This record gives sequence, structure tokens and C-alpha cells, in this order.
Amino acid sequence: MSWVTGAAGSAYGVHNLPYGVFRREAEQPRVGVRVADFVLDLGGAEAAGLVLAAGALGRPSLNDFMSLGRPQWTAVRQRVTELLTEDAHRADVEPLLVPLEQVELLLPFEVADYVDFYSSEQHAANVGQIFRPGQPPLLPNWKHLPIGYHGRAGTVVVSGTPVVRPTGQRATPEGPVVGPSVRLDIEAEVGFVVGVPSPLGSRVAVDDFADHVFGVVLVNDWSARDVQAWEYQPLGPFLGKSFATSVAAWVTPLEALGAAFVPAPDQDPPVVDYLRDTPHLGLDLSLAVEWNGERVAEPPFATMYWTPAQQLAHLTVNGAALRTGDLYASGTVSGPERAQVGSFLELSWGGTEPVVFADGATRTFLEDGDTVTITATAPGPDGTTVALGEVTGTILPAR
Amino acid sequence: MSWVTGAAGSAYGVHNLPYGVFRREAEQPRVGVRVADFVLDLGGAEAAGLVLAAGALGRPSLNDFMSLGRPQWTAVRQRVTELLTEDAHRADVEPLLVPLEQVELLLPFEVADYVDFYSSEQHAANVGQIFRPGQPPLLPNWKHLPIGYHGRAGTVVVSGTPVVRPTGQRATPEGPVVGPSVRLDIEAEVGFVVGVPSPLGSRVAVDDFADHVFGVVLVNDWSARDVQAWEYQPLGPFLGKSFATSVAAWVTPLEALGAAFVPAPDQDPPVVDYLRDTPHLGLDLSLAVEWNGERVAEPPFATMYWTPAQQLAHLTVNGAALRTGDLYASGTVSGPERAQVGSFLELSWGGTEPVVFADGATRTFLEDGDTVTITATAPGPDGTTVALGEVTGTILPAR
Repeated sequence: MSWVTGAAGSAYGVHNLPYGVFRREAEQPRVGVRVADFVLDLGGAEAAGLVLAAGALGRPSLNDFMSLGRPQWTAVRQRVTELLTEDAHRADVEPLLVPLEQVELLLPFEVADYVDFYSSEQHAANVGQIFRPGQPPLLPNWKHLPIGYHGRAGTVVVSGTPVVRPTGQRATPEGPVVGPSVRLDIEAEVGFVVGVPSPLGSRVAVDDFADHVFGVVLVNDWSARDVQAWEYQPLGPFLGKSFATSVAAWVTPLEALGAAFVPAPDQDPPVVDYLRDTPHLGLDLSLAVEWNGERVAEPPFATMYWTPAQQLAHLTVNGAALRTGDLYASGTVSGPERAQVGSFLELSWGGTEPVVFADGATRTFLEDGDTVTITATAPGPDGTTVALGEVTGTILPAR
Repeated sequence: MSWVTGAAGSAYGVHNLPYGVFRREAEQPRVGVRVADFVLDLGGAEAAGLVLAAGALGRPSLNDFMSLGRPQWTAVRQRVTELLTEDAHRADVEPLLVPLEQVELLLPFEVADYVDFYSSEQHAANVGQIFRPGQPPLLPNWKHLPIGYHGRAGTVVVSGTPVVRPTGQRATPEGPVVGPSVRLDIEAEVGFVVGVPSPLGSRVAVDDFADHVFGVVLVNDWSARDVQAWEYQPLGPFLGKSFATSVAAWVTPLEALGAAFVPAPDQDPPVVDYLRDTPHLGLDLSLAVEWNGERVAEPPFATMYWTPAQQLAHLTVNGAALRTGDLYASGTVSGPERAQVGSFLELSWGGTEPVVFADGATRTFLEDGDTVTITATAPGPDGTTVALGEVTGTILPAR
């Protein structure tokens, strides 16, 4: 039981404790942990000797802390829980609690490489049906390996950062034209953040997932569908994605999600050895997509075909090194129902079936000024709920 | 005229002066410049007050120096030229010259994002003919925009680093199998290194190339063709490339290549506005590929369809930010003759026409223990030759 005001019953109670980086007024950015509607200043706590983390908590990103490894992650989480629950610590700790509205939240980690997977069977099948009608919805490789590609790490931005509508080439019957994207979309995804690196030339086994991955972060992989459709053959998405990828300001540690691991969908055909995870576990995260404040979809992450452990094993089977700060995202999360899809491409079925809002307004793709917010919850211990940090962004006109 | 032994007549004379990062015995890594068969210790020179660069030359990567911008790049190059040519400086500078064989050369810059283009018309057409026989060799988008994709920045390694043969999935008539790649290939490329960043949401105009790009580096984009062929639909190359990309230890500043800029091939159909560079200039770099010491190909970079300035303008037209250390590579350099191709896929025409060495040995793709070295020269001022730093690597068996 926490002594922090509002922690009891909160989805940001002491069972959650996500990490972020914050700044208050003229202070240097530092690591904090969220509890209820406060940020616990962990940089300050470490400076005061209340918690030990090799100086990593006073840094302007989570990377140094994430590089310490799971025993240290566990120790710091246990210590923070003590500080926030034992009355003996209240006098020392309360001055380090900063109301959320007094802080600026920054990008929580320096992104090393960013990989985006394509691991929802329903999403891949929907896209296949929209773009290749009459053909098999899944390509032959899809059930044999988690398809993925590298995105642009340098344009990963923190939740709240406005997104300038990208300009680019798109195909028209009269030939390619240049202009602002007219099919600007979202992709509601879940990202995994690597803490512990691996050396070049070695592999990370599917069972070693939790030794390397620090935590989970919501992702909106903004996508210019018209740009993407014209450019992507044969080397994949490039400028249709690289203008911005938004991530939440809060990274939820895996340890907060212990009650959320659930059996993942059966895989048929059976996967090759290096992808065989026993047990085969996904995460029961319930996502919600709000478009200008109206909830338009509820993508269920538990339906994902490929698990985060499988993705990590695949990413490294060729000997690719991991670095602290590597981010890999799930790909768009789409469930079997229309109201469970994680992109507006699917929600409007390729732009042919507009979404109608409560006030009668309609949308297929994003208009300037639109705001999209993705949230998620997961089951926590003892009947609690764990909220993931939201990821939100507003579209600015093209420049 | 330089007072440095061996500089006169050398392709690494004072008209060249490429930058790298080196370490001697127990010393800290620092920036150096190559002249003849020496490294001038620029970190030491800056510490001694012989050159001014805001402390950037004592750093273990070129990034801080590259971020200073062209006026500073020019000033330091002029000063280094004075130091190496004026006898008055000889007594101070000679102790800072380290024989090349006494140093370890390190990765010269921290790679931010790595983008690989596909800008040789002949290479794209060759690949099209090998993989899609009977169909048009170029896809419809190819002459409208420089096709590219993001690679893995974290596995860019310096020349000389051994390359472990990657393991992965490949398709067989009996279904996918897992094992060491059996079609391991090279891609001889030219890379461009960004010094000056650009903000998110803005574009870099095609004419602003030289304000952002610091220099040029040879690249070998090792490729597992079997892995790539099975995985690349629909999101492009991933594990077939991400195991290693080698770059030379020396970054040749653009200013050393003033005499190498030549008109690039005419573009038909005409390109859209943001890609129109006037003048339309490529670089006259003559590459050479050595396979186990035998020269097997001489790819001519001047034949590239898309220029580095066009690639940079395309990369940012959607508002993607540039960071110091961004690396973008040309894609495989292939000229019209079989002996001018930059990949073994093309040299062996999809593995159907083995390369025969002088001793009678044959090869289609790389075997364990093979070494590939890529070199290049360019015309320098006044009839001189500029050598680019070589990029070499040896294949180790799969683990």
C-alpha cells in the first residue's frame, strides 16, 4: 500500500512504475518513475543516496540504466517500491515527487536501431486483401518468419510532438506527382526496448528475451500510404514511414507485466527451431485508438501471431548485434473485428468506407489538425490494471 | 610540396588528406589525417595548439568535428596543409606523424542512421534480369526516384573486421530451411557521411548537398542472397543485410574530390523539381574489387544514374531529420560491362557462370576464408590521383 496520494486503485499504482525522462523548469533532464499523477525524481533520489544505480538515474536518457541488466532493474524497482510504500521513507521521498503537470516529458531513451515487424496475421491479411484482391492474403513467407525491416531511428519522437504532414511522390494515372501526402495514416503498435546488448556474430536465443529487453512502449508508426505504395518495390517502405515515429514517454518494465503474459496463438505450420519458444507467450494488452477524442478501435495485442521473444530471436539469428536503446515494434496490431484494427487503411478499408464520427464528420485518412491518441491497459497483479503510457500526436500542415 | 617522406607523388599526398580515428598502444583514440604512409595525430596537434577545432580532434570519432560545418572543415584542412607543407612547422609536426603500421584504425564515425540506395541503372537492370527474367528489367518507379531503404546502423564495422557467415532461413523446394547462408555476396558501394544535421520537418535542397555532407567512404554491403530472397517480400531486405556492413577507415573530405565531379548521365524521363540538380554532377571514382587478391571487377562510379545530391534531397523531402553521422550509400556500383559489376550475383550471373581465378579455382559466391578488398581512385588536382581508403573483410565460418 503506497502512501502516495492517488496511488491506491490507480492504473499507475506501485504495481506499475514505468520509467521516463523528465525536465522541470531549468533543471537538467533526469530519469523519473511515474506513480499516480506524480513523477518520482529518481535522479534526485540517487543523488540523495536513496537508491543506487551507478549514477545512471541522473542521466538524460534511460540508456545507462537499461544497460545495467535485469538484476539491477529488479533491485531498483524493489527499492522504489519500498520508498513509495514504507512510511519510514515518506519524509525523505515526498519532496522528490513532482506533479505531472509541472514536468516536461522527453524522449525516454536514445534510439539505437529501430526495427518494425509485421506480426499481426489479421493486419497482414487485411493489407493483402486491400492491395492484392483476389490473391492469397498472406505471402508464402509470412508464417515461417516474422517479417520486418529497419526504420529511421533519428525520427523517433516522444508522444506529444506534432507531426508535419510529409511531402513526397505518389503515383497518379498521369504519372508521379509531388505534394503533401493525401493518405496519411497511423499504425498502432507495441514497441520493445533493448537494455542489454549482444555482440556481433552471436545470437540471442528465444528464451533469453527477458535478459535483454527492458520494457514496453506504445508506438504510433505514422505512415504516408500514397508515398509508400509508389516507393516500396522492391526494397520496402522508406519515406512513407521515415518522417516520424512516435513513442510514449513512459517505458513499462517487463516486471510490471508479469500478469499480462498469456499463451500466444498456435502457430501452424510449426516454426523452425530458433523461433520455438516454450512456453509460447504473448502479452494481453488492450489497445485503444482515439481519433480527435473519439474511440474508433480497440486492437487486442494478445492476437499477435509472432511473439516479442520470437522477434528478438529472429532479429539476431544472422549474428546482428544488439545495442542498448534498440527499439523493435510489433507492427500494426489488428484483431479479427473491424473495430479492432490498428490503422485507418483498414478501418476505412483502403479509403472506401469512411469512418463516421458522433457529430457526423467523416474521415478516411488524417486531416491537418487531427489528433490521434493510442492508449493501452494490461492486467496487473491481484486484479489491478496496468496502464501503458499513451502516445499522442497532432498533424500539422505540410511545409 | 610537402616535407613528409613519401608524400610527393603519393595518392595520399597533401591533395588528399582523408580523416580517420586511430589508436596507438595504450593511448586514447583520436582523430588523425592520413598523409603518405603516416597518420598525423590531429588530436595531439590540437592539444599542442597547432590547429583549432573546438576540441573535436581529440575525440574518439569524427562526429564532433563533422558537426562543425563546412567553414570549419575548410579551415582545418587549410591549416593541416600548411603544417605539412611549410618547413617552418616541420619541427613541431614531425613528432606527431605516426607510421601507419603502428596504429589501429577504428570506425571513423558513429553511425546515426544508415540508408542504402539502389542507384546504378545497370545493377538494377541486372538484378531484374536475373530474378525476373522476361519482364522489364526496371520497375516503373525506378527512374522517378532514387529507391532506397534503411539498413542496420549498429552493424556497420570498420574495414578489416572479420565477417561471420550469417545463418538464416532460405527457401528450398521442400520448404524453408535454417543454416549458414550459401549465397554470401558483396556489394561494392560508395557512402556519403553527413556532418551537419537538419531539423525534423524541413528539407535539404538538392543544391545544399555540400553544406551537409562531410565526405566519402567506400562501403561493402555484405549480402546473403538466399536469406534476402526469402524474406524481402513485402518489406524489403532485413537479415540478408543486417549482419555486417563494412566501411573504410578513411573518410575522404569532399574538398579532396573537387576535380572528380563530372556530369552525371542524362536522366530521361525528366525528374521532378526537388530532384533537379543544376549542374547534375556525379563523381568519377574508379572502383576495383579484389577477390583473394585477384582483381575481378572495376565498377565505374561515374555511371550512377542518381547523384549523391539527389539522394540527399530525396532522403529529406518528407521532412526526415538528418543527424551528424548519418551514412547513406549509393547501392551497388555496376557499369555496363560484365567486368564492371559490383556484386558477385552479377559477376556469376546469379551463380550460373562461375568466376575462374588465375590458379584455376572457381567461385560463384563467397567461401569461408575468402577476402574481398574494394579500392578506388579519383582524379585529383593538377594531374594527381586521390586514393580512397580501402574496405576489406574476410569471411569466417558460421557459428
